[in-house]
Amino acid sequence: MTASMGTNRYGKSGIRLVLVRRGADRHELRDLTVDVRLEGDFARVYTEGDNAPVLATDTMRSTVYALAQEHLAGSVEEFGRALARRYLDATPTATAAEVELVEHGWSRVHVDGAEHHHAFEAGSPAVGTAVVRLGQDGAALVRSGISRLTVLKTTGSAFAGFLRDEYTVLAETDDRILATEITAEWTYVEGSDPAYDDVRTVARQALVSSFAMHDDSQSVQHTLYVMGEAVIDACADVAEITLRMPNKHHIAVDLSPFGIDNDHAVFVATDRPFGVIEGTVRRS
Amino acid sequence: MTASMGTNRYGKSGIRLVLVRRGADRHELRDLTVDVRLEGDFARVYTEGDNAPVLATDTMRSTVYALAQEHLAGSVEEFGRALARRYLDATPTATAAEVELVEHGWSRVHVDGAEHHHAFEAGSPAVGTAVVRLGQDGAALVRSGISRLTVLKTTGSAFAGFLRDEYTVLAETDDRILATEITAEWTYVEGSDPAYDDVRTVARQALVSSFAMHDDSQSVQHTLYVMGEAVIDACADVAEITLRMPNKHHIAVDLSPFGIDNDHAVFVATDRPFGVIEGTVRRS
Amino acid sequence: MTASMGTNRYGKSGIRLVLVRRGADRHELRDLTVDVRLEGDFARVYTEGDNAPVLATDTMRSTVYALAQEHLAGSVEEFGRALARRYLDATPTATAAEVELVEHGWSRVHVDGAEHHHAFEAGSPAVGTAVVRLGQDGAALVRSGISRLTVLKTTGSAFAGFLRDEYTVLAETDDRILATEITAEWTYVEGSDPAYDDVRTVARQALVSSFAMHDDSQSVQHTLYVMGEAVIDACADVAEITLRMPNKHHIAVDLSPFGIDNDHAVFVATDRPFGVIEGTVRRS
Amino acid sequence: MTASMGTNRYGKSGIRLVLVRRGADRHELRDLTVDVRLEGDFARVYTEGDNAPVLATDTMRSTVYALAQEHLAGSVEEFGRALARRYLDATPTATAAEVELVEHGWSRVHVDGAEHHHAFEAGSPAVGTAVVRLGQDGAALVRSGISRLTVLKTTGSAFAGFLRDEYTVLAETDDRILATEITAEWTYVEGSDPAYDDVRTVARQALVSSFAMHDDSQSVQHTLYVMGEAVIDACADVAEITLRMPNKHHIAVDLSPFGIDNDHAVFVATDRPFGVIEGTVRRS
Repeated sequence: MTASMGTNRYGKSGIRLVLVRRGADRHELRDLTVDVRLEGDFARVYTEGDNAPVLATDTMRSTVYALAQEHLAGSVEEFGRALARRYLDATPTATAAEVELVEHGWSRVHVDGAEHHHAFEAGSPAVGTAVVRLGQDGAALVRSGISRLTVLKTTGSAFAGFLRDEYTVLAETDDRILATEITAEWTYVEGSDPAYDDVRTVARQALVSSFAMHDDSQSVQHTLYVMGEAVIDACADVAEITLRMPNKHHIAVDLSPFGIDNDHAVFVATDRPFGVIEGTVRRS
Repeated sequence: MTASMGTNRYGKSGIRLVLVRRGADRHELRDLTVDVRLEGDFARVYTEGDNAPVLATDTMRSTVYALAQEHLAGSVEEFGRALARRYLDATPTATAAEVELVEHGWSRVHVDGAEHHHAFEAGSPAVGTAVVRLGQDGAALVRSGISRLTVLKTTGSAFAGFLRDEYTVLAETDDRILATEITAEWTYVEGSDPAYDDVRTVARQALVSSFAMHDDSQSVQHTLYVMGEAVIDACADVAEITLRMPNKHHIAVDLSPFGIDNDHAVFVATDRPFGVIEGTVRRS
Repeated sequence: MTASMGTNRYGKSGIRLVLVRRGADRHELRDLTVDVRLEGDFARVYTEGDNAPVLATDTMRSTVYALAQEHLAGSVEEFGRALARRYLDATPTATAAEVELVEHGWSRVHVDGAEHHHAFEAGSPAVGTAVVRLGQDGAALVRSGISRLTVLKTTGSAFAGFLRDEYTVLAETDDRILATEITAEWTYVEGSDPAYDDVRTVARQALVSSFAMHDDSQSVQHTLYVMGEAVIDACADVAEITLRMPNKHHIAVDLSPFGIDNDHAVFVATDRPFGVIEGTVRRS
Repeated sequence: MTASMGTNRYGKSGIRLVLVRRGADRHELRDLTVDVRLEGDFARVYTEGDNAPVLATDTMRSTVYALAQEHLAGSVEEFGRALARRYLDATPTATAAEVELVEHGWSRVHVDGAEHHHAFEAGSPAVGTAVVRLGQDGAALVRSGISRLTVLKTTGSAFAGFLRDEYTVLAETDDRILATEITAEWTYVEGSDPAYDDVRTVARQALVSSFAMHDDSQSVQHTLYVMGEAVIDACADVAEITLRMPNKHHIAVDLSPFGIDNDHAVFVATDRPFGVIEGTVRRS
């Protein structure tokens, strides 16, 4: 036998859950996509075709729906924890369960200035995210985040003084559009008992405000740090935050062939290629 | 020769334009995707390979950027008209020019409750749309619209009393989730001089409000009509409105095998297949 | 009442059907996506909320599965006809039924040079398409096609001699990459009884061969015509063919700043914007 | 100061390169998408806004095009190595460079049975992949792979004997469709000097053949192992292979309400949710 089984994991992805709570005054709506993964001593499933230790991924799916009413009452992190706990209990062979949750936002419809009882409109494309990892040994790790949060500012951003080699053609600029789609994920200070939803609200505000207010941005990197620092400052429970910020390039169009002056006014928004900046800012 | 050239058109698609106006008080941001198409007597371009009558699609692209500062001061409809006019002037062989514009929304960032001078966040996925068609003979047609406007209500929607044949398994329901992604497009009363942006704002409000308030919806069709009627009522300049409303099905999960009661609470949001309802509501 | 109901239609989209025929020698696989639409006198469904004339879109879906074994034995056109017939029979209020079918290709796996009995690999992204429209009055229209057929040639294509105006910056070229994703759709000579699958096979070959062999292409338009003509010549049953051919631009990179000669060797493949050329070639 | 900079990296993604080699007999076509990432001691770029150590991502892009003719003569792995070497040389502050390459396949067009000189058709959606990581310290790691390789078999696959808990509703089956989109990535035996292209060809054949021939599949896991083992057996230079195989579920449709027997013939292909199985098979 020349081969043996190494690390492995399995699960279910793309479980779509919509939960309605029919309150006396009004309905509440939750809209989640859930991914589940199990790790453990599953080698014989692969090498022998022995399914005895396997919780079917269809069962993972059912479990999300079965636990929703009871356990999706507050944060997605708490729901993720209940799910992970359940998967570990149901699967003795598993050593760890990981549940990844994405919450899609809906805005309540306003009619004549008043909140409607049960109608919603899809709002910002930004989503709340969480990854909850539990071990059979009791170890727990929660990462929370925000994704698809796209921001742009029309000035206050430069890029100059960078390395130049024989393949460098990019001109320096002291004024450009800065645009990015933020993916943020943070972990919590050990021993803290965070109010997950509050942290996400405050973190989001800190990210957007610091992006807007950073008026001498020298690079995406420079602004990334300011944004990470703002979250660390604003959220005492956050231990570190990792930001992934693609540089969504906006190129000023050369209108001089047409005798038109383009003073930072007319831009092409490009899709590819794009810069990617990733970095972690830690609490000192 | 067994073949001959029939109808044809050509153009450029996916022209991405971002325009910044640097006002004294604050910056304004416009973000458009533009498609251009020309029709005319271009048969010999196809059959002879004679490019003499052809305005290059690259020139169509340049023209969008060249005209932006001067002509994208108000509505996308007016910008589209200026572009179409220019394409016809530049291309004697063309009999008609069609310009399709999609405007992507950005929300101004608020910091400490105040509007920021030059920072924006990608807001609702809903976009404003316009198609402007001009003929060399002076004929003009403007269609305006809204797309990607997703709404959902958690009650007030039924579907019952429909035809049943041997392949019908769907149960009747007097309470379901109604969700759709609205594509709306309207034309204007002949001779009217509409304030395009105002019409779009009012139409959007009318669509969302009437969707929310239609509390005895018998079908997507039924609500579509109420929504179209609301726009006709609210916008005196609108001649007719065509609505395309996919039925984004939400299926209540059967939790009875688990001894759990699911009283219109836990749903699966499904992607495919989906219903599609299209209809035009006209001013009488 | 200021509003009334105009034209309308409704149906189901994205019905995914996989059919396996377990032959003695080997299994056959069909993989389709089906869309269904009905038109008719459905105004009161919209204005009154009266569902009595409505065949539920869920029933449309069931019908596709119920009829598959019996009616998907040959071409998708014949299956579409059986479906459309059935929808009209089941829905007296409908005046016309339209069924749109996309067939996804799978290649049989070869092991040691021999065809495998029941294993398949997803092959070319090109798909076969058909739209079958039947009226209660017996009128029938079949359009067949091929989509997502992407071809590229590295030479034999020029673009010069086009109109130049003040916004034209594009240089003329006598040698460029020509690349497109073909969408082709054809109708049949009245009274013909076409072997649909054979026509599609021959048409596909004619499209690709004529694209490859057209060595003095002056434009996408020029090659489009040659390709349409090739199909008309090769397929006696085809009355006319409409081709939609985006110009997938490949831009030669300027390497002169690096002292490197780029003699039609190094290109950027761009996504947006792109040219779009559409035209119909008819049998004379 | 409450915050400090942790790990970080930056680069350019989505660099699209098409390279044509104009041989005497015929043209050769290469079509790649390249991503570049640098790691190193860049903290002051973030914290100070000091760009002195930064190779602009635009330069990364230019470098891909500048090096293509000379260095993309053989495998993507060798091209990746040349690029990574160059990025490290140009960026003293970088400690490691990672280049990720995806090669898109094109099939040469055949006309009348003969290979065409310079025309190509987009073929299988499967792509070749490579990740080359170089350190300033000379460390090198090459991972090669294949992605988007979709296979399906209509029989020879079971799923039974799995764990059942209170949320398990899935029935056992001894005959189902097995379909997956393979993502495979392998590393090489230390000290080996692999012919990368040959390994990829042999690995692909081994993956597809073993998938097809594994006629008593008890699960995706079971078949994943057989496939990994086949690659280990067939490719002496491969140290280990990691396979990611989503379970693209095909659900047999219940036609019994219509009095129709569905003996493993009529299936719905579903998009979401889907199973995901990942595992590494190692050379013993």
